[in-house]
Amino acid sequence: MTHRIAILGASGYTGAELVRLIATHPGMRITALSADRKAGMTMAEVFPFLRHLDLPRLVKIDEIDFSSIDLCFCALPHATTQEVIARLPKDLKIVDLSADFRLRDPADYQKWYGQPHAAVDLQQEAVYGLTEFYRDEIRAGRLIAGTGCNAATGQYALRPLIAAGVIDLDDIVIDLKAGVSGAGRSLKENLLHAELSGGTYTYSAGGKHRHLGEFDQEFSKLAGRPVRVQFTPHLLPMNRGILATVYVRGEAGAVHEVLARAYEDEPFLQVLPFGTLPSTRDIAGSNFCHLGVIGDRIAGRATVVAVLDNLTKGSSGQAIQNANLMLGLPETAGLMLAPIFP
Amino acid sequence: MTHRIAILGASGYTGAELVRLIATHPGMRITALSADRKAGMTMAEVFPFLRHLDLPRLVKIDEIDFSSIDLCFCALPHATTQEVIARLPKDLKIVDLSADFRLRDPADYQKWYGQPHAAVDLQQEAVYGLTEFYRDEIRAGRLIAGTGCNAATGQYALRPLIAAGVIDLDDIVIDLKAGVSGAGRSLKENLLHAELSGGTYTYSAGGKHRHLGEFDQEFSKLAGRPVRVQFTPHLLPMNRGILATVYVRGEAGAVHEVLARAYEDEPFLQVLPFGTLPSTRDIAGSNFCHLGVIGDRIAGRATVVAVLDNLTKGSSGQAIQNANLMLGLPETAGLMLAPIFP
Amino acid sequence: MTHRIAILGASGYTGAELVRLIATHPGMRITALSADRKAGMTMAEVFPFLRHLDLPRLVKIDEIDFSSIDLCFCALPHATTQEVIARLPKDLKIVDLSADFRLRDPADYQKWYGQPHAAVDLQQEAVYGLTEFYRDEIRAGRLIAGTGCNAATGQYALRPLIAAGVIDLDDIVIDLKAGVSGAGRSLKENLLHAELSGGTYTYSAGGKHRHLGEFDQEFSKLAGRPVRVQFTPHLLPMNRGILATVYVRGEAGAVHEVLARAYEDEPFLQVLPFGTLPSTRDIAGSNFCHLGVIGDRIAGRATVVAVLDNLTKGSSGQAIQNANLMLGLPETAGLMLAPIFP
Amino acid sequence: MTHRIAILGASGYTGAELVRLIATHPGMRITALSADRKAGMTMAEVFPFLRHLDLPRLVKIDEIDFSSIDLCFCALPHATTQEVIARLPKDLKIVDLSADFRLRDPADYQKWYGQPHAAVDLQQEAVYGLTEFYRDEIRAGRLIAGTGCNAATGQYALRPLIAAGVIDLDDIVIDLKAGVSGAGRSLKENLLHAELSGGTYTYSAGGKHRHLGEFDQEFSKLAGRPVRVQFTPHLLPMNRGILATVYVRGEAGAVHEVLARAYEDEPFLQVLPFGTLPSTRDIAGSNFCHLGVIGDRIAGRATVVAVLDNLTKGSSGQAIQNANLMLGLPETAGLMLAPIFP
Repeated sequence: MTHRIAILGASGYTGAELVRLIATHPGMRITALSADRKAGMTMAEVFPFLRHLDLPRLVKIDEIDFSSIDLCFCALPHATTQEVIARLPKDLKIVDLSADFRLRDPADYQKWYGQPHAAVDLQQEAVYGLTEFYRDEIRAGRLIAGTGCNAATGQYALRPLIAAGVIDLDDIVIDLKAGVSGAGRSLKENLLHAELSGGTYTYSAGGKHRHLGEFDQEFSKLAGRPVRVQFTPHLLPMNRGILATVYVRGEAGAVHEVLARAYEDEPFLQVLPFGTLPSTRDIAGSNFCHLGVIGDRIAGRATVVAVLDNLTKGSSGQAIQNANLMLGLPETAGLMLAPIFP
Repeated sequence: MTHRIAILGASGYTGAELVRLIATHPGMRITALSADRKAGMTMAEVFPFLRHLDLPRLVKIDEIDFSSIDLCFCALPHATTQEVIARLPKDLKIVDLSADFRLRDPADYQKWYGQPHAAVDLQQEAVYGLTEFYRDEIRAGRLIAGTGCNAATGQYALRPLIAAGVIDLDDIVIDLKAGVSGAGRSLKENLLHAELSGGTYTYSAGGKHRHLGEFDQEFSKLAGRPVRVQFTPHLLPMNRGILATVYVRGEAGAVHEVLARAYEDEPFLQVLPFGTLPSTRDIAGSNFCHLGVIGDRIAGRATVVAVLDNLTKGSSGQAIQNANLMLGLPETAGLMLAPIFP
Repeated sequence: MTHRIAILGASGYTGAELVRLIATHPGMRITALSADRKAGMTMAEVFPFLRHLDLPRLVKIDEIDFSSIDLCFCALPHATTQEVIARLPKDLKIVDLSADFRLRDPADYQKWYGQPHAAVDLQQEAVYGLTEFYRDEIRAGRLIAGTGCNAATGQYALRPLIAAGVIDLDDIVIDLKAGVSGAGRSLKENLLHAELSGGTYTYSAGGKHRHLGEFDQEFSKLAGRPVRVQFTPHLLPMNRGILATVYVRGEAGAVHEVLARAYEDEPFLQVLPFGTLPSTRDIAGSNFCHLGVIGDRIAGRATVVAVLDNLTKGSSGQAIQNANLMLGLPETAGLMLAPIFP
Repeated sequence: MTHRIAILGASGYTGAELVRLIATHPGMRITALSADRKAGMTMAEVFPFLRHLDLPRLVKIDEIDFSSIDLCFCALPHATTQEVIARLPKDLKIVDLSADFRLRDPADYQKWYGQPHAAVDLQQEAVYGLTEFYRDEIRAGRLIAGTGCNAATGQYALRPLIAAGVIDLDDIVIDLKAGVSGAGRSLKENLLHAELSGGTYTYSAGGKHRHLGEFDQEFSKLAGRPVRVQFTPHLLPMNRGILATVYVRGEAGAVHEVLARAYEDEPFLQVLPFGTLPSTRDIAGSNFCHLGVIGDRIAGRATVVAVLDNLTKGSSGQAIQNANLMLGLPETAGLMLAPIFP
């Protein structure tokens, strides 16, 4: 059976990535696409790389008949999202890719996003969409909140370690390197090719990045006590991919063993042999996350490196993985595309 | 039914691209992989991006039992290839990706490759693998010679125009821009990131590039008289993609119409609206070729721009498309992966 | 003696490049910098790469006392420029980097820029700033019109050939590859790293690029009869550099000899040995232009390849070279910086 | 007075960078260039970007008359260097860019480089070349050992902090991002454009990178007790530049103040305002090092970010800065070239 899919916000990168993945998905068919400012255009006009597909024309959200939709992906900007979803049918299955429903506590939302949440009831209803750790809730859920792409990368590296108690919870440093597509299709000087290519720099350093809200929420819940990590993201001259170098205190062998065991049956999470560290080039365009662990010459320290594609496993691929669960499809349906190299 | 596939020369870029594409191909299963110097290694060791796949270990060619193989892709270096294929079973279906069987005339081969052909009988048997123009021969063939990636790009732009007689055969200029993966995984100074990134230059200029042998052979045969094009390739700081800017004498509207009509039923060849020209970014990682036509302020001149991914439509994707025909599979099987953007 | 320099429009790339070059210029000192929307800021805030320099704060143009300025560089947007310069003192030496004064004929200006010129008298006064061909006029001039960067590249390849009569004037094709800094610091989707990096495409194809106005004006004047070239620019994923592949009809040896002789005493124009073609990597960040010539297997055809850095020799370096002449300084003063590689 | 300079190993990146910088140096003239395997060639053949310079032909080391040389830069590979320098005149001023004389203790050398040192007496004589901290020794020295480029970056961030006692010496993490030119012109698969561009990964992780030997030596000496840092380098798809993100325990304001004061009179070390972090794009091609400090939401932690160009301040620029001191020239002579942007 083919499920009828709507994508709201199809003119951004995560929207386009959803279309790219669904193009070869055996159980989904796109029947509605929205893009407010580009309503009336075809996807081929907005994204010529999709011109071989037979897709519905872009419309405004109000023009969509949601009664004929089985599941709706929402790839709209933050803040706008909560207003839009509040007006959608209350029984519509939704996978949201924005930041609006990631934090459960309204106070946390206000702290990190600088304004009160406009749909607190939905915020309570939403399920945090880190698939491998919330499968049952996602399967049973109606509104799934896709995780931050950086937040996903860091959690894949750390959750099993926190749960197993093999690292010091008070000394975790996440030094993250991110490709530029994570910033979306926004017109900013620092995202221009001329300004970014050939260089690197930090952004939102010093404990200000909003994905820290997710780390705090999830790690503290997991540990049963407050956990605060140090987190510094860097922008790199690459389009796709995140590499998180995570510095922990713990015995490296144990760290590796915990991760390897935690993920041994996971189709998308691949733990490399001990001492081997991953490259973002090996997961580009795919839903895979590679993880590696190495010790240090300083006893009692270990470094975990996790890589994933921010647009796929970190966003649209994760969204489809969650939608597969919600629709009763095989979890990996449409997501086994191999990475692209070189 | 799933066909059993062997890939000879699996440690190069075209070999890896074959594996990438077959990974989600519904009718093929890889049962043998060879790589002479890396025999004994796993593909995950040679290409970590393929580590999620369950693949046979790399072996030497002699270790493969070809009686259990339905079709063999040969992705070996030039010259080596003719020796290897000469020793393979004579009834084995083979799709070759090297340059060894592209030219039909032994004298042409000697002229462009600087040595006599070592398997002239196979050279006669081989079918030129530009799928859209040799479908029947490929379906009936046993040994298919994959085209040069540049040669494919130029031919997609020009064959229908030559056949239709809408351009001057004595004034054709192909200015081609190529990504670096076309040069393979060879260790040369000019292919280093530090030397290539951020710049561009010509290579094999002045009528010396070997793909001219293919242009000469194919265009002359099509026109029924000698056709010699001018061809200048440039290396660009990008990994995948070829863009051919083809300067022709002819009425631009007619040129566009001929191309649009020629390719209207082709699944992989997309002719853009008149006046719109394509980008390599819109076909990366896919088997699609986009073509555009524009006129010039100088009457009687037209420019055709064709783009394709050298590793996919220009090489391994083409090879699988041909293999699909040879195995009685749908021609597009496994090849409808959308391009990757951004 | 150190001359006092003003730069109008210092917050764009050509403005910043002027500052970079003047930083180590022995005969110039920057005493005024304007940037309308960024007035009040320091250059270190706008361009942190210049933070080691002791520079005046950015001001509005009206705040500058031009009586204390020896020479003014104007790096403002097109159209704005003619209005600004019309209001500047009539005896102020000006080197303009915009397109406003490149075309001498008001009708040509209107044709290529879509509006009547607002300062026709200045247009008549202006000297076309291609240094090597207008030295005397520049030395004697007051208002110098910097050339288009593409226009400069094409002219370096072609002017001596047209003057010497060694090529067919009716069959000239310029296929040009340009780095992205030529588009300036403008916020456009196609200039984003995510959209440009890793790919290439044409722009202003089909005889629509405005630099054609310069080619027409200069080549026709030189030939004494109308000359129309075919010109297709491509955007490349690199920040600096232009490579022009120029296809001409003529005897390649003669073409090379004419260029070599024409430029043998030029400090910035380097003609490579016959058959050797240049790379943009070898001139990045410098005021040098490298040229190469090769023949073709088709008799009577030659290919000239010229490379230069669009921001230096194609714009700000040229401007300083012209200013040196106007100020009685050595022509090469401050401009002998070696290219940067890798 | 112009000093006569020899460069041994002129065919590598650091050798070429020396030539680039000396090209506009007012007090140095290159009179000898060696390159063993390329002896007999011109620099224009090996590095076309230097073709505008009037340089001596490449020779073998034995062909150089060192009696006419005032100072010799040695840019040879590790291990080879100690043998070569041992055979040079004992009174020749030498600035070495290799790793051979960076470590003072023969046991340390053997530990990090895997073999006994072949010129222990020279090892004792050599002065560690981190200019700002060893000025007097360098001025008086005969053999200066250029620092590792990563080692320089980390030391600029940390030395004043260790000296001032404002950070915890037992909890220092250096997460470093390096451009590819630091790996030299070596032919390795992972340095190919096709493999590196668009991605990132760690190298020599886990406490194995040889520059740790320098950190250990220098930091321990400075602190008067053993200091061991954790150090993880990453390779980035950029040609020039290093960014070190240094995680320390200490009060961020004090950390910033110590750095700002330590470097306030340094011409090449620029400390940004508190809370502002630097970009590698702002120092490319220059001898400048930018440093920034930010606090964290976790009290008592600070992050220092230092950037420099590995080929300039990290290697050849540092070498010239040291040579200036040895020759009695102004320390900044020839080194005030502004960075190149974009």
